[in-house]
Amino acid sequence: MEFAHSEKARKVIKEAESFIREEIMPAEAIYLEQLRQGGDMWKQPAIMETLKAKARSAGLWNLFLPDEDYGAGLSNVDYAPIAELTGQCLIAPEVFNCNAPDTGNMEVLVKYGSEEQKQTWLKPLLAGEIRSAFCMTEPAVASSDATNMQATATIEGDEVVCQGTKWWSSGVGHPHARFVIFMGLTDPQAHKYLRHSMVLVPMNTPGFKVERMLPVFGAFDEPFGHGEVSFNQVRLPVDHIIAGPGRGFEIAQGRLGPGRIHHCMRALGAAERALQLMIERGRSRVAFGKPLINLGGNRDIIANARINIEQARLLTLKAAWLMDTVGAKAAMSEISQIKVVAPQVAQTIIDQAIQMHGGAGLSQDLPLSALYAYARILRLADGPDEVHRALIAKLEIRRYEDRT
Amino acid sequence: MEFAHSEKARKVIKEAESFIREEIMPAEAIYLEQLRQGGDMWKQPAIMETLKAKARSAGLWNLFLPDEDYGAGLSNVDYAPIAELTGQCLIAPEVFNCNAPDTGNMEVLVKYGSEEQKQTWLKPLLAGEIRSAFCMTEPAVASSDATNMQATATIEGDEVVCQGTKWWSSGVGHPHARFVIFMGLTDPQAHKYLRHSMVLVPMNTPGFKVERMLPVFGAFDEPFGHGEVSFNQVRLPVDHIIAGPGRGFEIAQGRLGPGRIHHCMRALGAAERALQLMIERGRSRVAFGKPLINLGGNRDIIANARINIEQARLLTLKAAWLMDTVGAKAAMSEISQIKVVAPQVAQTIIDQAIQMHGGAGLSQDLPLSALYAYARILRLADGPDEVHRALIAKLEIRRYEDRT
Amino acid sequence: MEFAHSEKARKVIKEAESFIREEIMPAEAIYLEQLRQGGDMWKQPAIMETLKAKARSAGLWNLFLPDEDYGAGLSNVDYAPIAELTGQCLIAPEVFNCNAPDTGNMEVLVKYGSEEQKQTWLKPLLAGEIRSAFCMTEPAVASSDATNMQATATIEGDEVVCQGTKWWSSGVGHPHARFVIFMGLTDPQAHKYLRHSMVLVPMNTPGFKVERMLPVFGAFDEPFGHGEVSFNQVRLPVDHIIAGPGRGFEIAQGRLGPGRIHHCMRALGAAERALQLMIERGRSRVAFGKPLINLGGNRDIIANARINIEQARLLTLKAAWLMDTVGAKAAMSEISQIKVVAPQVAQTIIDQAIQMHGGAGLSQDLPLSALYAYARILRLADGPDEVHRALIAKLEIRRYEDRT
Amino acid sequence: MEFAHSEKARKVIKEAESFIREEIMPAEAIYLEQLRQGGDMWKQPAIMETLKAKARSAGLWNLFLPDEDYGAGLSNVDYAPIAELTGQCLIAPEVFNCNAPDTGNMEVLVKYGSEEQKQTWLKPLLAGEIRSAFCMTEPAVASSDATNMQATATIEGDEVVCQGTKWWSSGVGHPHARFVIFMGLTDPQAHKYLRHSMVLVPMNTPGFKVERMLPVFGAFDEPFGHGEVSFNQVRLPVDHIIAGPGRGFEIAQGRLGPGRIHHCMRALGAAERALQLMIERGRSRVAFGKPLINLGGNRDIIANARINIEQARLLTLKAAWLMDTVGAKAAMSEISQIKVVAPQVAQTIIDQAIQMHGGAGLSQDLPLSALYAYARILRLADGPDEVHRALIAKLEIRRYEDRT
Repeated sequence: MEFAHSEKARKVIKEAESFIREEIMPAEAIYLEQLRQGGDMWKQPAIMETLKAKARSAGLWNLFLPDEDYGAGLSNVDYAPIAELTGQCLIAPEVFNCNAPDTGNMEVLVKYGSEEQKQTWLKPLLAGEIRSAFCMTEPAVASSDATNMQATATIEGDEVVCQGTKWWSSGVGHPHARFVIFMGLTDPQAHKYLRHSMVLVPMNTPGFKVERMLPVFGAFDEPFGHGEVSFNQVRLPVDHIIAGPGRGFEIAQGRLGPGRIHHCMRALGAAERALQLMIERGRSRVAFGKPLINLGGNRDIIANARINIEQARLLTLKAAWLMDTVGAKAAMSEISQIKVVAPQVAQTIIDQAIQMHGGAGLSQDLPLSALYAYARILRLADGPDEVHRALIAKLEIRRYEDRT
Repeated sequence: MEFAHSEKARKVIKEAESFIREEIMPAEAIYLEQLRQGGDMWKQPAIMETLKAKARSAGLWNLFLPDEDYGAGLSNVDYAPIAELTGQCLIAPEVFNCNAPDTGNMEVLVKYGSEEQKQTWLKPLLAGEIRSAFCMTEPAVASSDATNMQATATIEGDEVVCQGTKWWSSGVGHPHARFVIFMGLTDPQAHKYLRHSMVLVPMNTPGFKVERMLPVFGAFDEPFGHGEVSFNQVRLPVDHIIAGPGRGFEIAQGRLGPGRIHHCMRALGAAERALQLMIERGRSRVAFGKPLINLGGNRDIIANARINIEQARLLTLKAAWLMDTVGAKAAMSEISQIKVVAPQVAQTIIDQAIQMHGGAGLSQDLPLSALYAYARILRLADGPDEVHRALIAKLEIRRYEDRT
Repeated sequence: MEFAHSEKARKVIKEAESFIREEIMPAEAIYLEQLRQGGDMWKQPAIMETLKAKARSAGLWNLFLPDEDYGAGLSNVDYAPIAELTGQCLIAPEVFNCNAPDTGNMEVLVKYGSEEQKQTWLKPLLAGEIRSAFCMTEPAVASSDATNMQATATIEGDEVVCQGTKWWSSGVGHPHARFVIFMGLTDPQAHKYLRHSMVLVPMNTPGFKVERMLPVFGAFDEPFGHGEVSFNQVRLPVDHIIAGPGRGFEIAQGRLGPGRIHHCMRALGAAERALQLMIERGRSRVAFGKPLINLGGNRDIIANARINIEQARLLTLKAAWLMDTVGAKAAMSEISQIKVVAPQVAQTIIDQAIQMHGGAGLSQDLPLSALYAYARILRLADGPDEVHRALIAKLEIRRYEDRT
Repeated sequence: MEFAHSEKARKVIKEAESFIREEIMPAEAIYLEQLRQGGDMWKQPAIMETLKAKARSAGLWNLFLPDEDYGAGLSNVDYAPIAELTGQCLIAPEVFNCNAPDTGNMEVLVKYGSEEQKQTWLKPLLAGEIRSAFCMTEPAVASSDATNMQATATIEGDEVVCQGTKWWSSGVGHPHARFVIFMGLTDPQAHKYLRHSMVLVPMNTPGFKVERMLPVFGAFDEPFGHGEVSFNQVRLPVDHIIAGPGRGFEIAQGRLGPGRIHHCMRALGAAERALQLMIERGRSRVAFGKPLINLGGNRDIIANARINIEQARLLTLKAAWLMDTVGAKAAMSEISQIKVVAPQVAQTIIDQAIQMHGGAGLSQDLPLSALYAYARILRLADGPDEVHRALIAKLEIRRYEDRT
């Protein structure tokens, strides 16, 4: 057993840490100011492009991508601490070109994309020139059960026709967003896991429409946002089906593993940030003659926060290590475990940090309410807690079934 | 012991219940549509005035006011179930002219206002023609400890000068808002509880400025809103001090008791609405071949929600009954108890209802995220949980100190 | 709404309170000393009979029995606070002749017993001269589902033959125990609720045998105890079937309602005692220069304990009031609610009180570990939490089914 | 990062695992039968000596001792999984000669003992021929604050005189117990951490007396037990002070680190056993037509149990790894973290396993109540949760103090 990061990881962690501290954190306020200027927030603040250029030239770019040709060639367990660091600051993931769902889409295109798709779509994504979205969840059905999916990707001759409504398509509101990956039913007669296809849909294709943006607790998460998108007879050449018809589930499964690790680590980064803000506030704010930190059960809250972050982080790192060593399938239980526990830990700690700040904690003056929204939505995105717990229990019980 | 409501209460409950079911609930969507029309949401949707007129002519008006001359003459324990009912629907309190902070301001003016203040400000408030706000919390200090307060209400000759910054002044954004009640330090040498004054400040007084509106989790709660307000040498005749100089604390204390009961009952109404939505969703939505309600621990969640609502409601009703029978001072522990427990019960149940709805629960399509924000802010408003728990413990321990 | 106790109740509460304070509490240590003397603890300490005689002559006797001829004629809501008081002291219920399961057995005999059964068994029970037990739960099946029951009460001519094994038969170890009430299957063909009979089995009947006593966390709860009992062809005249064959379920149902209220109130009394001990210890014990009560989150623990006791007590009183006014069937959800919440509240608070006492809290020097065992076993006895939660949810959801 | 055990560890784990499965588990019932035979349980069941001999000859002996000369030479992180395995079975630690407090005493003697102490006391301890105890906690003071200690170890000429009362001296009841290590105040004027001495007290020294044994929830944990011990002018040659006067704190600190890791891993082993029993019961027991495992929230309980065990185990392993690599002082926060979390995880899961078993779970038929007692007492032993949380918070906050 060895709990230290690899030398390679330590180097990147150190660089990312100082870049975040010295470049990104001080720019956060400027970013928000630029974003809020005027009324429309669906735009790219200029400072983001400056930061991206700096990060890229510093080699802090596409770190999430384990592929050595396209990305940084870090393993999951080596990238995980970087993901955590970026979770401390809402704008950091984009600065490093490591923000969801572009990360997942890049992974898909690296692994399954045709040469043409790589040229046209992957290349500018890798360069941070465009953004993309992922259209899977549907409003009308419980999407946690993927067999419920109603949208269709019907093959008609050498064309595929996308039809249906998707929502919670994150990133679709960004001014640089250019394409989405759409999942639809192609062959209802096929085996349960061979029915669906993933189609690369350029956003200017006729029939594609962002119907509206969806807020989380009233916040629209501009300029990325979460959209409700209709596909009304969206017709494309059949080569827009990624890796060919019927491979939707396979791609979705492969996409989710690393994504869940990234999400969980970012959530833990958010929890660390909240803990830090909580302590700073608790030390500086005085009531009844004492710093808040010395009142009531506040120190217990801090101790429990530390314990829970440490535990969830180790579990997430172990899941990453399992993915690196035995693969996503064998790490299925652990991946579901972190998906349950990391967002919950983050939600709780951020809520407590809000409480320590009083009204300020809920306002736009602090990142806490945005971090809270991130943690909360994560308990639903990529499978709700309930589905993950059911899977963990099933795998646990199965060990006993095998015995009898 | 008698757990049934009085006959008088039962009659009003029944009327309010059917008015909410038949008039307000169906109007909720229209209200939101009118509010969201155009871009600016800081306006009064027309349907609200229609509903208010109907409610007033049905006698469902100012029910919160125990004073028989000015209000409905209901005791706290009789009004409490009405407050709960209005908590189920975000627009109901205003329809019945029972929305905070106008309710508290009306109570203050009934009890402490001069004849002129009653004529000029109370009368149109009672008629629902104007709105008001309450300016107490300050951004720069831990306002849970009222002795921290920095704003001043200095007497200069026959004038009082208000100076300072307040925030979380709820309702100050409403287009009908006309005055605020401002609390400031008048005499630093006086006894701790005799130092402050409450000043009635018309919003058009020079020096009064709403600096910005504060969101809760990104939502601005239009058209009421929560404002940050600066008082820059706001100069008024000394008769604008309510009940005379130095009585700020006395008035604040009297104001808070009933207000906390109203808030807690509304929070429980919100919890009931969430439970209802959760069950309806759980019965109609299907995943893995079963209604959600029959999956995992969902029934346990429902059972626990029912238990926790019942318990918190009984405790709140008892606190109201104590206030009616032995007064706010003797009910101090119970009032703090409900203030801790009711918002927490509501926050938890609404969070669970959101989870049952998936992404929809977080969106603008359902009232859940707005109800959640209400419950969450309540854990900070009118004293954070921590202050109330400290008071409960102090009173509990004091019983043992008296013995020795 | 009226949260004050009736005048009748107030008088008895006052008398019971001072009797417990002046007579029983000081005798607790003597009782334990007498009990522990020698090695065998399956005996009646002499002081108990002295206390019983005093209580009886003070009129504090059989207070639980609502029947005016046989008992004190108190309603459930009036008796509830007495039950709570007795829960503060492990020996108090017996002193007042109000200890389970004799209370339930007396209720059954008052309501369903034949004249002869009343003469022979009820009379000495009411006089506190004998003790009894109740044999329902079985080791081999999940007894929470009563249809699982395997024991039989077969009618052969004018005899009934009891066969089977029961356990957790509380009180069967007491030296004064003379009879048990046995529940068994009589007619497998009858309607689900008409199949079982309750048989009054004198403990000296051939074939009746206490196989062993069962500890709770290692404590045998002497001199009452919980027994595993075998019925091997126990043959009795058919008139030993209480109220006649097939009425077992009906009797069991009627028996459970008041019993659950008594249990829950006693559990809350135990929680009150734990809270009291916790505060006394916290005030007197010093560590790191401060009384424990001022360290860490201890005051939050006290505040939460107070809140949770208050809430659970009000809910239990409401359930009692419902039972008095609309009956056990209409109060079904509330009775299940208190059965879930009161033992849990007690278990948590007693655990916290143990923690405040350090090792002493777990030892025989304090009543805490015995109170803990009581609260813990209550989460299983008379239906485990899970069954009650399932019922609450079912009733809650049914309200929506009726609508459609 | 490397989450796999070392090759050396894997080998021992495998051997210990099969020894426990094949030799110890089947002997558990026999052990209990032998122990319970007759009335007196303060005796060594014969099967234990048989098992010890087998374990010793299999090389599964003194595995806890990192010293290569005296023990197995395993690092903390390599021994940790063995400690966990032994926690699954209450008798396993003794079989491997790895039971507290003998383990800590052996470590002390290896590190600080004189040659004579090693010959006389360490040698037979290592051979499993005698047992020992550790006398630190005192009944009259909050022993979590070690400066409270009242017992004295006064040096008079060439003798040391031990005086005072200790309790919760675990293992002192064992028939093979021969000596205790006693901690007492020697020089009240010295620096806070140099005042105390540790004295090796043979149990046959005049003035040494086990006053009584203390139960945990009524169970005496025979044949080891927890004793209250009086030292009445216990007079010994001064060379019985381990490592010389004034080094008590130093030794205590060194003793605690590994001990806490062992305790936490054993607690997690107990949790694993409880989870296993819970699943087996849940699969085999049927109620309402379904296996319990498929009822209500039982699968959620299993999933959460799995998550919490995994997390706590990783954290404990990391603390062990830190102790191996940077030492106990640098691992102080992590050691306190596991001390808070592992017993709590175990207590919760064992409680849930009890609930799944109904009354059987509380009885002597299953190891659950004994495992529960172990987990519960661990929340007090070696520093109560509260003290550890306070330390974690202090270290956490200190990081911010250093910055300013």
